[in-house]
Amino acid sequence: MTELLYKKITEIISLTDEEFALVKSFFLPKKLRKRQYLLQEGDVCRYQAFVEKGILRSFTVDEKDGEHTLQFASEGWWMADLASFLTDEPSIFNMEALEEAEVLLIDKPSWNQAMETVPKLEHYFRILMQNHLVATQKRLMQSLAEPAEARYKRFSITYPDCVQRVPQHMIASYLGITRETLSRLRKQITLSK
Amino acid sequence: MTELLYKKITEIISLTDEEFALVKSFFLPKKLRKRQYLLQEGDVCRYQAFVEKGILRSFTVDEKDGEHTLQFASEGWWMADLASFLTDEPSIFNMEALEEAEVLLIDKPSWNQAMETVPKLEHYFRILMQNHLVATQKRLMQSLAEPAEARYKRFSITYPDCVQRVPQHMIASYLGITRETLSRLRKQITLSK
Repeated sequence: MTELLYKKITEIISLTDEEFALVKSFFLPKKLRKRQYLLQEGDVCRYQAFVEKGILRSFTVDEKDGEHTLQFASEGWWMADLASFLTDEPSIFNMEALEEAEVLLIDKPSWNQAMETVPKLEHYFRILMQNHLVATQKRLMQSLAEPAEARYKRFSITYPDCVQRVPQHMIASYLGITRETLSRLRKQITLSK
Repeated sequence: MTELLYKKITEIISLTDEEFALVKSFFLPKKLRKRQYLLQEGDVCRYQAFVEKGILRSFTVDEKDGEHTLQFASEGWWMADLASFLTDEPSIFNMEALEEAEVLLIDKPSWNQAMETVPKLEHYFRILMQNHLVATQKRLMQSLAEPAEARYKRFSITYPDCVQRVPQHMIASYLGITRETLSRLRKQITLSK
């Protein structure tokens, strides 16, 4: 179940079969049932997860039981609470599988050892962090500057996958709007088609 | 004027004098007057800037002339519109010096060449991107989840520097609140001291 990992890494760096065999050996495969948690708030995030199948979601829960979604990750994406992973401090996030999922997990010692053993990986992860940073900055600016409608339109263009596969209230919590606002926006958009 | 660059890089990787001399040679020093722009919206962001002195700010301007601040960068911080820098597409950001400033600029060919010449730099920039990503994710979650007061308090603890040196309306645009709300919050906090 590592074909997708191979594909995504070799989009950025070249790897011989021997090198990939090595890389692969640092990962731990795990299957998740629908709604199963990969991380619970208060626990340390011990792994970065690469999604081979399914969709994961990371989110926080506030004092009023309101959910705030940081990220969805479907096939080919990475997910982790990097802050907790890097500092060993308890995570503020929960991570759950929205569908039956298959992930490849790598812990911090293995991650560092993988980059020492196959130094080209340092380049791969630099590019990965960089792309992730660009996407997060974009999202932050959107949440500061764009009206809800524009944010929803952009979301459905960028993640057509998620619009179909993710429950509406989770999309609302990702966009920082209420479920009612989202349902109004969807009606408006359907009517204007 | 590269003492600070040396200090910040060698906090993460070790460099010989020869290696740092090489690294240094890829940068272009530039002085900015107060209010001078380093980047204008619509131009491609050709450089990543390392701040040796002063404070820079990156921000967008919306159709109603409202400003939205992405980042402040004081001594020892990096600033760039990475999306534009990486893709050569026009930037949506403006960058200006809030005080007289001295920056070290590196363009994309030099940046790539520096990492090829001194491969350890790949590790430095991976860590840099990673830390920046963690900070941006935190800010995004705060803007989705935290009330304005908590956001302001956190801001003044994280950036005591900026609270003193940055005009209030820019802090408001960073926090995604109006100037009036910010001034109300400041009064409340002063009264409760």
